[in-house]
Amino acid sequence: MKFKLFVAVAGIATAAMLGNAVAQQSTNQAVNARISLMKLYAFNLGTLGAMAKGDMAYDADAASAAASNLAKLTSLNASAMWPMGTDNASDPGSRALPAIWQNFPDVGAKAAALSEAAAAMQSAAGQDLDALRAAMGPLGGACAACHKNYRAPAN
Amino acid sequence: MKFKLFVAVAGIATAAMLGNAVAQQSTNQAVNARISLMKLYAFNLGTLGAMAKGDMAYDADAASAAASNLAKLTSLNASAMWPMGTDNASDPGSRALPAIWQNFPDVGAKAAALSEAAAAMQSAAGQDLDALRAAMGPLGGACAACHKNYRAPAN
Repeated sequence: MKFKLFVAVAGIATAAMLGNAVAQQSTNQAVNARISLMKLYAFNLGTLGAMAKGDMAYDADAASAAASNLAKLTSLNASAMWPMGTDNASDPGSRALPAIWQNFPDVGAKAAALSEAAAAMQSAAGQDLDALRAAMGPLGGACAACHKNYRAPAN
Repeated sequence: MKFKLFVAVAGIATAAMLGNAVAQQSTNQAVNARISLMKLYAFNLGTLGAMAKGDMAYDADAASAAASNLAKLTSLNASAMWPMGTDNASDPGSRALPAIWQNFPDVGAKAAALSEAAAAMQSAAGQDLDALRAAMGPLGGACAACHKNYRAPAN
């Protein structure tokens, strides 16, 4: 299970690192702000994922920096980034499913779980590679939990 | 001087809010990460600027949230986002001047000044509109200080 999650998060991070040749973009700045936030998640997660996979040499300082960034980013107040009327049925620049706005308590719980997983990674990433790898599964799981229910597939 | 800075920052925020019909984009994910970071600065600054200008009703909670976000964002470790070879002479997706890599101590000092101005805004924004307005000048000045020396004009 942990390995499956790890493969999933490695895939997510790789896709985020490679898949931006065409920028996802909306005319709504709240939508663009949350896309920017997801890109910053992916950039920092990409560093941690590359180290976990052995594609990048483990570097305690760089791992700590990426994990601390993730902890700060996942603790931002993102409420202004998710106004009503910015789901993917209303805005072709968004992949956010309308279900988000029908399940705010669950979305909030999943966001809190992501923030906790990022805080755990922040404690682990600078210790050693094994600790980083162990924290990767819950972090990837927290990303996937929200994407599975609330994000439309990429076109 | 303060008013000039305020007008400047309002202009910056407005440009950031309106000027994204065509996404600035690179094939380098470090460049895209810093563009995403600047967009998140602009989004949160846009809320504060709109309240300062009277375009948005003052709301202490929303102002505090935006200012707290800015304080966190400006305290991220951005070193991985600025690798050598990603200036605007090397990457058409970037507006970062080569001078950045020749003046790292000054860039670092300007980044620290931005972080301090954002922390001051974090203390001020939730107090009242006057306090928010007073903190806007130094914040806009810190943005402009870096852009003036180290960012190429938009095409």
